[in-house]
Amino acid sequence: MIIARVVGSAVSTIKAGKLSARKLLIVQQATVRNELLEGNPIVAVDAVGAGEGELVLVALGSAGRQTDLTDQAPADATIVGILDSLEVDGHDTFNKS
Amino acid sequence: MIIARVVGSAVSTIKAGKLSARKLLIVQQATVRNELLEGNPIVAVDAVGAGEGELVLVALGSAGRQTDLTDQAPADATIVGILDSLEVDGHDTFNKS
Amino acid sequence: MIIARVVGSAVSTIKAGKLSARKLLIVQQATVRNELLEGNPIVAVDAVGAGEGELVLVALGSAGRQTDLTDQAPADATIVGILDSLEVDGHDTFNKS
Amino acid sequence: MIIARVVGSAVSTIKAGKLSARKLLIVQQATVRNELLEGNPIVAVDAVGAGEGELVLVALGSAGRQTDLTDQAPADATIVGILDSLEVDGHDTFNKS
Amino acid sequence: MIIARVVGSAVSTIKAGKLSARKLLIVQQATVRNELLEGNPIVAVDAVGAGEGELVLVALGSAGRQTDLTDQAPADATIVGILDSLEVDGHDTFNKS
Repeated sequence: MIIARVVGSAVSTIKAGKLSARKLLIVQQATVRNELLEGNPIVAVDAVGAGEGELVLVALGSAGRQTDLTDQAPADATIVGILDSLEVDGHDTFNKS
Repeated sequence: MIIARVVGSAVSTIKAGKLSARKLLIVQQATVRNELLEGNPIVAVDAVGAGEGELVLVALGSAGRQTDLTDQAPADATIVGILDSLEVDGHDTFNKS
Repeated sequence: MIIARVVGSAVSTIKAGKLSARKLLIVQQATVRNELLEGNPIVAVDAVGAGEGELVLVALGSAGRQTDLTDQAPADATIVGILDSLEVDGHDTFNKS
Repeated sequence: MIIARVVGSAVSTIKAGKLSARKLLIVQQATVRNELLEGNPIVAVDAVGAGEGELVLVALGSAGRQTDLTDQAPADATIVGILDSLEVDGHDTFNKS
Repeated sequence: MIIARVVGSAVSTIKAGKLSARKLLIVQQATVRNELLEGNPIVAVDAVGAGEGELVLVALGSAGRQTDLTDQAPADATIVGILDSLEVDGHDTFNKS
């Protein structure tokens, strides 16, 4: 899963299949220190009730459909976890609280 | 899903399997401000009745087959939503109307 | 699907599973104007009877197995359409005839 | 599979579906000589009891769900092997012991 | 499928699920002229009895599981063909014999 920060949201009235009624958030890949990376953000379905500004885990590809909310939905990116903390080489690099 | 703009269309008479009779559109990845990104466009199946110039969501990979129109079709990119608006950091970056 | 030009062919006697007896073509990604892009070509299974020099649509990933010829074959790239024409921003960029 | 080194761990209390109770490790792609590559690390589910500092094999995409621990879990990256040794061009490039 | 050369092998005693007992080879992407490309090699399961130095076809993603040896194995890269020859623009670029 990639580490990403929720930076916004998308509204789409006309959506295909089981994507209807799903919350769509804009996520930008981030470092383990919660710094945004270069590159274009993507739109992910929110499966965990994430909020703007939170650091999350995004599952890409068919993995993104392995949740109750995204089963059989045409979603290739799903927020599957809200990060509490990250540790690298014995040091905390991110702590939510 | 990636954010993309419909920039054209493709005609292919000889198509494999359930790709037959599907509308093929050319889409180019775009920013949250509806600016086209560098890079080569791809061809996507239209599952939502999108029109040229519209900003859309494109599902890549097996996610692209999770619609009635693309079920079991050899399609790795499908337009699955028409974007109404995008919001980043509390500001509207795109508004269709 | 990516737009690609058939630039050659591959011969492989020892192939796994249902890849046996399949025609393998070398394809190079191309622009909407049928110009070859930089980058290394890939090998794709031909599901539509494409010929060398033709501009085609290549489905990547599991989509490449959604044809009669590639069902259950270990193929991650399949030619699924022969392009007749491409139109971008209201102008023809490619026309086969 | 990519060659990667376990460089840390992630804690996420709120996780979707069968990702709950899975150990999440931070892995960074590495060379055959166990040198870390540039690029952002990803978060992978540990299916083999890997420890920090170990060189491992990470399966990406749907392959990552082909283990007892990750079956039907929204995981797109799974540690599926602990590397003992690597040999390139007749020379050992990595040896764990 | 990508064109790659077998450059080495990997030993991993602790492997997940049906990856056990599979031969793991290190493969590096190559040109149609059998020249190695830049970039880090990956580890692939050998489904065709390939040997070091041979030019092969590697199937990535779920395609890699469509062989008897890799069915349900957590493998995202499998050697699915040994290349005999490659032809581009009417010229032989590679010939094994």
